[in-house]
This record gives sequence, structure tokens and C-alpha cells, in this order.
Amino acid sequence: MSAKIEQIKQHLQTTGVEAAFITTPDNVFYLSGFLSDPHERLLGIMVFKDAEPFMICPKMEVPDAKAAGWAYEAVGHDDQENAWEVLANKIATITPSIASLAIEKSHLTVERLEALQRFYPNSAIVGLDQKLTDMRIVKSEDEIVKLREAAKLADFAIQVGCDELAEGKTELEVLSAIEAAVLKKGYYMSFNTMVLTGLNAASPHGTPGNTKIKKGDLVLFDLGVIYEGYCSDITRTVAFGEPGEAQKEVFEAVLGANKAAIALAKPGVRAMDLDKAARDHITNAGFGEYFTHRLGHGLGIGVHEIPSIHGTNELPLVEGMVFTVEPGIYKGDTAGVRIEDDLVVTKDGVEILNSFPKELQIIQPK
Amino acid sequence: MSAKIEQIKQHLQTTGVEAAFITTPDNVFYLSGFLSDPHERLLGIMVFKDAEPFMICPKMEVPDAKAAGWAYEAVGHDDQENAWEVLANKIATITPSIASLAIEKSHLTVERLEALQRFYPNSAIVGLDQKLTDMRIVKSEDEIVKLREAAKLADFAIQVGCDELAEGKTELEVLSAIEAAVLKKGYYMSFNTMVLTGLNAASPHGTPGNTKIKKGDLVLFDLGVIYEGYCSDITRTVAFGEPGEAQKEVFEAVLGANKAAIALAKPGVRAMDLDKAARDHITNAGFGEYFTHRLGHGLGIGVHEIPSIHGTNELPLVEGMVFTVEPGIYKGDTAGVRIEDDLVVTKDGVEILNSFPKELQIIQPK
Repeated sequence: MSAKIEQIKQHLQTTGVEAAFITTPDNVFYLSGFLSDPHERLLGIMVFKDAEPFMICPKMEVPDAKAAGWAYEAVGHDDQENAWEVLANKIATITPSIASLAIEKSHLTVERLEALQRFYPNSAIVGLDQKLTDMRIVKSEDEIVKLREAAKLADFAIQVGCDELAEGKTELEVLSAIEAAVLKKGYYMSFNTMVLTGLNAASPHGTPGNTKIKKGDLVLFDLGVIYEGYCSDITRTVAFGEPGEAQKEVFEAVLGANKAAIALAKPGVRAMDLDKAARDHITNAGFGEYFTHRLGHGLGIGVHEIPSIHGTNELPLVEGMVFTVEPGIYKGDTAGVRIEDDLVVTKDGVEILNSFPKELQIIQPK
Repeated sequence: MSAKIEQIKQHLQTTGVEAAFITTPDNVFYLSGFLSDPHERLLGIMVFKDAEPFMICPKMEVPDAKAAGWAYEAVGHDDQENAWEVLANKIATITPSIASLAIEKSHLTVERLEALQRFYPNSAIVGLDQKLTDMRIVKSEDEIVKLREAAKLADFAIQVGCDELAEGKTELEVLSAIEAAVLKKGYYMSFNTMVLTGLNAASPHGTPGNTKIKKGDLVLFDLGVIYEGYCSDITRTVAFGEPGEAQKEVFEAVLGANKAAIALAKPGVRAMDLDKAARDHITNAGFGEYFTHRLGHGLGIGVHEIPSIHGTNELPLVEGMVFTVEPGIYKGDTAGVRIEDDLVVTKDGVEILNSFPKELQIIQPK
């Protein structure tokens, strides 16, 4: 934990900024190990250039923050108090004023900034967003362990989905069985599960409904599970009974694109190169116009993080980055296929965190 | 739809503010009927004191916004464009500058304000939060219809939970069955369902886990369902087999408190009066120290809205307000009981939106 706080402190020293106030629950969790959504209540970590950091949180959560591994002071406030006053009083014991303050501009609301500025009207306000983004884009071994577990749970969920497939069952019936199986193990999904059958998977507006699964359908599962605060996000498209040749052709084009991008991925290769490799493969197969989105996105505490894997992102991959590779073809009259893996960049390539087979699985109707 | 936009327009005229920019998905939905979570993409409604309003949204969502009933122009932007520039270009066709601009200070981020200020450096920025809050606190008949449906779905979910109870089943097994049954109907929960059995329900940190249900337990269900964008939130505590006398005593105290508050509720009565009625009842029964939270909260598009029903809120009830009444007693060595109803204030009292019985239900073990 402390190593991350130390990085923020060094950033403040390098940039000559006096203090930083981190308030998004994701980043508080990242820096402290304490995962909490305080809703409208104030939760934050103050880091100083030249002093010990502290956390401010609802009074009843102080023991939880400590138990989660927060090694510094945790200042509690209750609903009878003005939390900003509690914060300012604590800061006053450390420094009489704050010449410059770093905040998360992409998350802090105008109202909260005004609340801060009431106490520190003369502080120069700067952004801490880029620094936190830079830190979070490369995952530690500890984080990768959790992402691996999250991916395993997603594998399990896809298997449940496959086992549930039956002629005449609805998308919602299969979806509810998947989520129930994950909940029963005590885990939550990282987003609303998608189960789409037949041409529903080929529509950009497809949402799971009462469409019944029938023989020959391709069925698309897109889902993820949260493990100790870290998200997975994988997609598999399987066949229920023998699919037609046209569907197989779409499937193979997507599979080839997925593999082409993954084969290329290693430190130094740019995000845009992966997107291009997948897109070229699909274009060469004649389906270019039906691959309508970016290749993938970063993954971690958030289900959509950087790096964004799209055609103009020149960012080179670095060991420890975690992201999805999810090419898709959505051809309204034929099929919708997407194959999505979660990858971590290693020293000389990538590790695929999930392991459910990606070659076409044909589920035999009973 | 247009009536709500008209209210914003009149507010601008009254206060002499030139334009308002509304960007929270909940309020965009409230004003337009268009429910969308665009994540980091720009979605917003511009309302002018003296001109037609327009919406800005991702290009692919323009048809959805129209289909949802947005009667004015919808300006699309795509990922290749700077959405703020698209916005400014559209505004330029209406007015050369904006002297004063109302925003949602409690939601708009500092980054987004800075993006706006790059185009309108001289605009005076004011808050629109209070106006939107005032509008949303009183529900229209159309909204109440949806809240009634959401409450019915919660009744259904509680019934599923009761039907699932069995000796040795875990909290998570019951919880997953509830959520699966709701999902199967095509609805989403408004928050993570709570199922707590025995003394788990009496702990302030109780989360559903692998504790098994046993005869004589009180089992607490706290859940809600979203119907067309509107949330329910109800709690029932039932007995699995015959409970002990001490548990029954706790239950009766909570039930009495719930009824006392509801009996009092009508236009003109203050929120704090309801809290006091419930709290007095519990205190008189000898459990005052174990009722550790406010009596309730508003409900609507959000699962926690105003009015907050707590001991110092002097706000008088008005016809059309919707809120929960949810007294609870959490006595660590005896029982945890909460009974929560969703109410709408009527002309001379309240209507309870949910109908699952609140008297102690004793589920007989099979």
C-alpha cells in the first residue's frame, strides 16, 4: 500500500505541489486497499509533499479502513458534522494553508471543488488525473493475481451459460441462471450480463430478452465477474447445434482476428498495431464494414480503463498492462460474433488470463 | 416531456440566467424520457431562456433519443469529433455567447466545467441543482404508475425469497434465486439484494454469505426492482419456523413504529415528525438505542432521493412525494428486524405502493 502513497508523494515533490486530495472510490481503493462506496458522504485521501498522509471517511468506516490495510491515520466524520470542516481542521494541524492542491479533475464535482475552495480560496488547483492513470495502467503482481481469479470466474460463468442452453429457452432464462450461479458463489458481475441468440447478436442494439434459442443459432455471451475489487470481461460465441456455413465463415474471421492481434502483442508494440492486425484480418475476409468498434480496452478496478486499443492510439505496450482483445463482426442478415480475451502483457508477449476455449464450441441439443 | 423543459425555461426567465446545461443521465431521462448511460461520452440537454432546447448525444443514440420521445433537435457527435466543439458550434447558431450558464454543480466534474469554460470563458456559472431537486421531489401521475409497478415487482421478489427458504440453505442461495427470478422476467434490481438470516441481520456490517438458514431464524430481505427507470426498495423480515418470544417482541416494536409513522403521514406533516413517531414507538418499547439510522429516504429514478426522512428535516410533506418508511432494530444478541414500505403522499394521507403483508409471516419448514 505505502509504496503507492509514496509514488504520489514523490510526484508532489517533483512537481512542487503541496498536497493531493484523492476522492474517487476506485482510487481510494487503489491507494489504500479500502473498498467503499460512501455515496454522497465524504471519503478521501490527503497526501502531502512533506507530511504524513491521512484518510477522511464516515466515522463508522474507520475500523474497516484500518482492517483493509490503511497504515496511516483515518479521520472519521459523522452525519451531524460538516465533513469539509472536519477535513480542514485536520489539515490545520499539519499546515496553515495549501499553496497548491492536486485533485482528480475528471471526477471531482464543481460543488466539491467549491467546498474545498471555501477553506482554501488561494490554493492553485492542478490535476492529478494523469499521474493516477499512469500508475494504474501498469498492474502489480498482486493485482494480476486478482485479475486472473476474476477471469477464472468468468470462465466458470460461460460454462454455466453453455450448460444451460436448450431448445426454446429464452436469453433471459440463460442469463438469469448464469448470474444466479455466480451470486451463489458470493461474487458480483462486473456489468449486466449479455446473452444474445441468433440474429439478436448481430444487432448493435441487441439486449437480452424473450427470444428463444433454436437449433443452429450462434449464442453470444459477454460477461465479467468482480474478484476482490478487480474485473474480468470476456465474450464467447458458441453454436447451439450445427451452424450454417455462412455463420462459420463469420466466426472464423473473428477468431483469426483475435489470434492475429494476440500473436503480435508484446512490450513496445503500439495499441494501434493490435487494432490494425485484427481489422486487416477481418477486412481481408470481406467483413471490414461489420467490425464497428475498437479492438479493446484496459481492465482492472474498472471494467473500462486505459489503454484504449484503437486505431489511432500510438501508446506502446508495457509489461503489466492488462486489456481486452475483442474483435467482432455484426452482419445483420447472417450472424453476430465477438471473441474477447483478457490479456496481461508479459516480458516478451502476453498471458491470456481466461481459458475457456475460443475455437467454435458446438453445444449439442439434448 | 415538454412541460418539464418548459419549467426549466421559466426558471431561467425568472432568474435571468441565459441557458442551462443538464448532463446527469438521471436528469436527462427525467426531462426527455431518454434513458442512457453514455459513460465518458458527452450527453446533455441545453435549455435556453429565449430559444428552443436541444440535446447533444453520441451520434448512434440520436434515433433512440427521438424514439424515447425527445421532441426537439438531437445533435449527434462521434468518437472522431471533439464533442465540446460540436456543442459550441450548435450553440453558435443560436447565440453568440452565454452571459450566464446554469449547471448541475453536484454532478458536473471540474474537467467538464473547464471544457465548457474554454468556449465560454466569461459566462457566469450558477447551480441548477436545487431547481431540479425541487422538480423531482414531487412525482407526476405517470411516474407514480411506474413506481407502483416497481413496488409490485419487489413484492414478487420477496415472495420468491419466502418460497426459497429451507433448512440448511445459505443466504446466497436464496439471494441468487430471487435475482434470477427477477432477471428472468427481464428486470434489473435497483441495488444488490440483501438476504440475512438470524443474528446476521442484527449486525451493522451484515452482508449475505454462506450462513445457513435454521429453524427459528428471522430472515431479512431488503431489495428493489427497476421498472422503466423507476426504483422500488422494500424490506420484509419473516420467520422461518416459530421464533422465540424475544424476537417477536423486537418484531412487534418495529411493526408498530412503521405503522405509527405511516398513520401520521399526509400533506403538511414534516419529515421529522414521521421519524419522531417511529422513534418514540421504538424507544417506548425499550429498543431506542438499537434504531441506528434515519426513518427513510425519497425514491424515484434514484434509489436514494430527497426527501430524507430524518429527525431534523423540517420539510413538510406534499402530495406526490414518494419515500420509504423503514424503521429497524438491530440488537446483536437477539434479532435484526426492519420493515420498509414505499409510500406516495396523497391528498389526505398516503398510498402504500407495495402490498406484501407486513405482519409477521411464519414460513413453515417443509
